[in-house]
Amino acid sequence: MHSAPDAAIPRRVIVTDVVCRDGFQDEKRIIATTEKLALIVRLAEAGVSSIEATSFVHPKVVPQMADADTLLARVPREYGVRYSALLPNLRGAERAVAAGIDEIHLVVSASDSHNQANLNRTTAQSLAQLAEVAAYVRRAAPEVELVGTLATAFGCPFEGDVPLERLCWAIEHFRAMGMTCVVLADTTGMANPLQVGRTLRALRARFPLVEWGLHLHNTRGLGLANAYAGLLEGVARFDASLGGLGGCPFAPGATGNIATEDLVHMLHEMGIATGIDLDALIAAARTLPALVGHPIESAVVRGGKTRDLHPFAGVPLAQSAGC
Amino acid sequence: MHSAPDAAIPRRVIVTDVVCRDGFQDEKRIIATTEKLALIVRLAEAGVSSIEATSFVHPKVVPQMADADTLLARVPREYGVRYSALLPNLRGAERAVAAGIDEIHLVVSASDSHNQANLNRTTAQSLAQLAEVAAYVRRAAPEVELVGTLATAFGCPFEGDVPLERLCWAIEHFRAMGMTCVVLADTTGMANPLQVGRTLRALRARFPLVEWGLHLHNTRGLGLANAYAGLLEGVARFDASLGGLGGCPFAPGATGNIATEDLVHMLHEMGIATGIDLDALIAAARTLPALVGHPIESAVVRGGKTRDLHPFAGVPLAQSAGC
Repeated sequence: MHSAPDAAIPRRVIVTDVVCRDGFQDEKRIIATTEKLALIVRLAEAGVSSIEATSFVHPKVVPQMADADTLLARVPREYGVRYSALLPNLRGAERAVAAGIDEIHLVVSASDSHNQANLNRTTAQSLAQLAEVAAYVRRAAPEVELVGTLATAFGCPFEGDVPLERLCWAIEHFRAMGMTCVVLADTTGMANPLQVGRTLRALRARFPLVEWGLHLHNTRGLGLANAYAGLLEGVARFDASLGGLGGCPFAPGATGNIATEDLVHMLHEMGIATGIDLDALIAAARTLPALVGHPIESAVVRGGKTRDLHPFAGVPLAQSAGC
Repeated sequence: MHSAPDAAIPRRVIVTDVVCRDGFQDEKRIIATTEKLALIVRLAEAGVSSIEATSFVHPKVVPQMADADTLLARVPREYGVRYSALLPNLRGAERAVAAGIDEIHLVVSASDSHNQANLNRTTAQSLAQLAEVAAYVRRAAPEVELVGTLATAFGCPFEGDVPLERLCWAIEHFRAMGMTCVVLADTTGMANPLQVGRTLRALRARFPLVEWGLHLHNTRGLGLANAYAGLLEGVARFDASLGGLGGCPFAPGATGNIATEDLVHMLHEMGIATGIDLDALIAAARTLPALVGHPIESAVVRGGKTRDLHPFAGVPLAQSAGC
């Protein structure tokens, strides 16, 4: 007997909101620490249980993240939120551990050219550096979880297709660093759902003990389709950014990360629990345009929820005869 | 042995562009017949082989479609395009047959309240009327194909969930009219991909001889996710509207139909043939803002194609350290 093709879909998903890191990092207006904290409180009150709050990088490289240490020291702890941060090197790890981080995200690009553009070294050089970071964290703060994020996992804006063997090679290194969770990032929105499904099936077969996450962008409108493909393969961990903030420097004006509220809306419509109050999340998203000074990319903020029904007047629409 | 979960995905898909009907019907600026014909030529030259060109309704109800007869009489015939039109009654069918239509789309809403709002009668009343239309077409023009389009198939903006039995009941009527193809329309963008998959599996089991089509809207950002769910169930026929034109009167400002260029981009990225030149399609979409007087909703027009690679300068990005 065949099992249903949607039998692997998880009943519960952990959504990590990344707006304060990925969403804000390239915004022109510098977001104040107090503004970030107010937003984090709103997210926590809405039930978001995992927040990537910042990155520990050099303030000259990413000015928006210059307040990483003070921000993390002041995040609210009463909601039980798990706070994570991205960081590239030992100095960043020392700062993050000192600031009381719960989870550290170590990122490397699967493709060399993107890693060069992003981190000014080859993927192999980055992996060697991250191994030192991981060893430090295991020694200095063994309670902190290490998560490996593999950028350009579904395509590189310079090289195009990224061979599966490149992914496996990088993931072997993550595994050797002791990581149990690997997040595959579609950094510039190049993935398609067939590819996401096939890649995950191949990786699950190769690394049966890894817990997989997806970090998806909506550059070509495929973000939620790719999330659905991941759900069909049992992925239960997704990054998303409130209001869809966080663009791609190679597609100016294009949409960025999948919007947290759009992802949560889809999940709830499919009966998948997130622990998040969608209305509170939408209300939080509505505060963003004033913060960043431009409109946001959010389908449910624009179009409303599927469950927002309309009163039936019983009379024909002015114009239509459509379908 | 299990077959791969994507084994049913078709190798080739027929994309019906509906911009001249669904896309234009609620636009404020009246599009001239010559402008529509120029757009149809562009679509045909791009390789679009199926075009819903107009609807035969009363000009007072839908002024944009007042030129249905003259438009259809003048569409280019040298490209082998199959031209279809939507129509609600016998008068419309007589006009369409006289104008040389190839395919007639008969629409009814699965939910009574939407059918009342759209057509001022119950679903049962509409089905009785459409049976007369179908009988006329079979007699007067047996070479014309009849396609049944079931609106609000995945949810009604007034009633919410639409029971599967309502769909089956309406489809039984379509079958009794001799139709072999049924298009399920997500009229106001309420579907989610899990629902699309499960609905199609149930309907395929109940009506194994029907060829299924999908007409999807992107109101909550789920249009392409729903299309992917349909592809997984073997659906090989999709409506889409160039530039994503065609809104929903219940969600002002929300995105409308899935954009033809975004659908074709996804299909081509997944190796599914459409016969369409995507670059020519994108070029045609870029002509729309001047025609309708407002921006279009097109991910690939905004963000570019996945295959549009960028030159690698070998130097770090100004800002990033992201994923």
